[in-house]
Amino acid sequence: MEKTNVAIVGLGTVGTGVARLLLDHGDRTARHAGRTMWLKRAVVRDLAKPRDVDLPAGVVTESLDDVINDPEITVVAQLIGGLEPARTIMLQLMAAGKDIVTANKALLAEHGPELFTKARELGRSIAFEASVAGGIPIIANISQCLSANQILSMEGILNGTSNFIVTQMDEKGASYDDVVRKAQELGYAEADPTMDVDGTDAAQKLAILAHLAFGATVDWSQIPRTGIDRLDPTDLQYARELGYRIKLLAVAHLADDGLELSVAPTLVRIGTPIAEVRDAFNAIRVIGDAVGPVFYHGLGAGQMPTASAVVADLIDTAVGRTKLTFQTLEYFSIDQPPRVLLRDANTLMARYYFRLHVANHPGTLAAIAAVLERHNISIASVIQHENGGGSPHLDPVPLVIMTHSTTEGASRAATEEIASLPSVTGGVVALRVKD
Amino acid sequence: MEKTNVAIVGLGTVGTGVARLLLDHGDRTARHAGRTMWLKRAVVRDLAKPRDVDLPAGVVTESLDDVINDPEITVVAQLIGGLEPARTIMLQLMAAGKDIVTANKALLAEHGPELFTKARELGRSIAFEASVAGGIPIIANISQCLSANQILSMEGILNGTSNFIVTQMDEKGASYDDVVRKAQELGYAEADPTMDVDGTDAAQKLAILAHLAFGATVDWSQIPRTGIDRLDPTDLQYARELGYRIKLLAVAHLADDGLELSVAPTLVRIGTPIAEVRDAFNAIRVIGDAVGPVFYHGLGAGQMPTASAVVADLIDTAVGRTKLTFQTLEYFSIDQPPRVLLRDANTLMARYYFRLHVANHPGTLAAIAAVLERHNISIASVIQHENGGGSPHLDPVPLVIMTHSTTEGASRAATEEIASLPSVTGGVVALRVKD
Ligand SMILES: NC(=O)c1ccc[n+]([C@@H]2O[C@H](COP(=O)([O-])OP(=O)(O)OC[C@H]3O[C@@H](n4cnc5c(N)ncnc54)[C@H](OP(=O)(O)O)[C@@H]3O)[C@@H](O)[C@H]2O)c1
Ligand SMILES: NC(=O)c1ccc[n+]([C@@H]2O[C@H](COP(=O)([O-])OP(=O)(O)OC[C@H]3O[C@@H](n4cnc5c(N)ncnc54)[C@H](OP(=O)(O)O)[C@@H]3O)[C@@H](O)[C@H]2O)c1
Repeated sequence: MEKTNVAIVGLGTVGTGVARLLLDHGDRTARHAGRTMWLKRAVVRDLAKPRDVDLPAGVVTESLDDVINDPEITVVAQLIGGLEPARTIMLQLMAAGKDIVTANKALLAEHGPELFTKARELGRSIAFEASVAGGIPIIANISQCLSANQILSMEGILNGTSNFIVTQMDEKGASYDDVVRKAQELGYAEADPTMDVDGTDAAQKLAILAHLAFGATVDWSQIPRTGIDRLDPTDLQYARELGYRIKLLAVAHLADDGLELSVAPTLVRIGTPIAEVRDAFNAIRVIGDAVGPVFYHGLGAGQMPTASAVVADLIDTAVGRTKLTFQTLEYFSIDQPPRVLLRDANTLMARYYFRLHVANHPGTLAAIAAVLERHNISIASVIQHENGGGSPHLDPVPLVIMTHSTTEGASRAATEEIASLPSVTGGVVALRVKD
Repeated sequence: MEKTNVAIVGLGTVGTGVARLLLDHGDRTARHAGRTMWLKRAVVRDLAKPRDVDLPAGVVTESLDDVINDPEITVVAQLIGGLEPARTIMLQLMAAGKDIVTANKALLAEHGPELFTKARELGRSIAFEASVAGGIPIIANISQCLSANQILSMEGILNGTSNFIVTQMDEKGASYDDVVRKAQELGYAEADPTMDVDGTDAAQKLAILAHLAFGATVDWSQIPRTGIDRLDPTDLQYARELGYRIKLLAVAHLADDGLELSVAPTLVRIGTPIAEVRDAFNAIRVIGDAVGPVFYHGLGAGQMPTASAVVADLIDTAVGRTKLTFQTLEYFSIDQPPRVLLRDANTLMARYYFRLHVANHPGTLAAIAAVLERHNISIASVIQHENGGGSPHLDPVPLVIMTHSTTEGASRAATEEIASLPSVTGGVVALRVKD
């Protein structure tokens, strides 16, 4: 049987999972690849550090040169996180003739055009299924399986850490800080979870998907994004009362005048598939003009789901499929003009949920309604509960307003104006509502 | 730009959809294939019959020879239904050097080994994404995207017609016959819907999936199957009362001692994703040992969803990916022994729902309970409503029993014995319950 020699660079969570699949399930990978997938080298920073996998003698090395200078190694799973030295190592590996498989969405979102252009120049390929949505094979599905379609929209839960946090806050009534600690203990959140909870990670993944689905060349940092790090448990409660949950939704929607992209905590109706995505799961709903809606749900991260995607890519690369796809689709080509431009975020249409604290006296609601009317925003419903303890006419009471469809620009202008009304205390929470 | 010349044989529902995608969206298919996908010929039986697509002059022909003898045509979408002449035509096309794309699951389920072996001998490929689950790209997902996994189980709703009928019966309280008529009017059900409603179509699709996922070589007719054609609206009502819906579930489950395969109306808990699959949608839940559960939901049939799958296969074939996959995976190879054998259906474990009519007098339930106890089946719950009109001690009343887990063999033996009790009128309805 033919043999493809593989190396792993970076034996962390994902790298260890990949090593396990290659070492423990050689029969399986051989069957699916039509050749032996042989783990020849695993490059680590520190040989002494214990690894959660039994590596045969001679496999593990501290020297990247053991891979670079070995012409037998043709495919490398590059599983170091962050931008550097990941970028430099990837360039070195490609220059040495290796095809790359990676899970590093930050690197692709930041340096995609450079890396993909270099790969094409060198006749190499980069496979990156594991970079978005972990166990859900969304890259292959969009690039190949749905290739007969014009994708019309994609919406998804692309960050498992955020979804875990929101689910636990919602279901257990726990505070944001407590849940973040729990997520860290369970290994769902990193020591510094900023990129997960502030929407960066979801925006980086959305930028990759938007390129594949729409030919959009977007800098992820231009995608309007809000994270869940300032989400108030009160909003989860009100949402439930109104028949919704709140999810960190990444949305791409192709409109006549351009592409809408956004990442934001959004009210989604209880009972719809996207609202029922719990804990560390991810989900994506794609609408194609021929296929209609297709919904995918699976684990968004974690050692083995991510390793599953990496090993599928290693097999595709060894078989030769990756190269054909890579050559055909011209991913992130700087020679190709973008096929679609981003819409002005201010023109995005949505229903809104506003929550604010108001003085509990007559005229307050009228003043707020007048502002909304001036911005052409019509009110769908209002919740104002009695103030539990305090003196009825002094303590501010919470007020929740659900609007009909309006623009993001109008919503922003109106909420700023409302926040400056004398009867309003503190700011206005504004969340989008999906129907 | 390079050009791949494509032909369609059979311009029915699916063939017309494929022609539309190729003709109306040449820019899109060219972008995804890296070459022009050129529809050169469409073979029909009757030139005079009006088609729902504008074909350029010279494309449509009654002569298969116009395709067979044209060496420029390298890929053919074979979209005739049934076994013959579809089988013979496919063999002729392959002998003439054409790669095949097909949606015909009946043909593959019946003649897969012959056709795939012939294709390999001739150096040709057969792509068949459209043959299972319409718009859900489950073939590519199992064969490629999840290739790092041992699949542990698959369960799905694979027949859109049956699901439409059951959904309408459940939600509208309509009778089976009325809903079948409606399904025919809407184009969901064929003039003779037997293969859809008796479980044949789902069993054929399950046989294909079981081969891909488990290397099982199963004759679809050996899969134990029950259709929805004898489903009683009463059972849908009782199921709902108990917190379930009834779905025609195709199940493949890998156990230590072999593979369980079955197609049967099954009680699935309301609120679980599979229970919420409505109308003509299909869904599949796959569990892989690395990736965990992955859930897919999409339109199971219909012109454009099916055409979407066919055109994706045409592109994959033109690009060269299909050939690599086909050569590697040795689909339905008669040289390869099956990797797994079917389990004896009698040993399958499940909870059961039994419904029967019993004489409304003391001792009846005790007699039934005694039979169940003798077969080691323990009762989880019982529903016995008061008899609406009739005389309390004469008219038989319906009795519903939910059991704990037992074997299919025990369930069958017990229900036969119960049906023969003097206090029981008519047969016993036995349906599996999934948790
Ligand atoms: N974890 C997931 O669920 C998941 C899911 C999808 C994508 N990803 C992506 O996959 C990548 C890896 O993630 P991870 O969770 O496996 O991270 P991780 O556990 O932190 O592992 C990264 C590994 O890279 C090693 N490394 C860093 N610099 C190196 C160098 N110069 N030479 C050799 N090794 C080096 C680190 O070595 P030390 O052990 O010596 O620090 C560490 O073991 C990231 O891009 C991440 O975004 C992860
Ligand atoms: N419809 C769906 O949603 C769907 C979904 C998945 C898979 N499929 C599969 O796709 C295949 C086609 O289905 P369909 O719905 O398109 O069926 P259909 O509407 O009945 O079309 C079949 C076509 O084949 C033509 N045909 C039959 N024998 C022929 C011959 N010797 N030469 C040329 N044309 C011939 C028929 O011609 P006439 O028009 O002259 O009768 C008809 O137009 C079937 O295998 C089906 O199981 C269908």
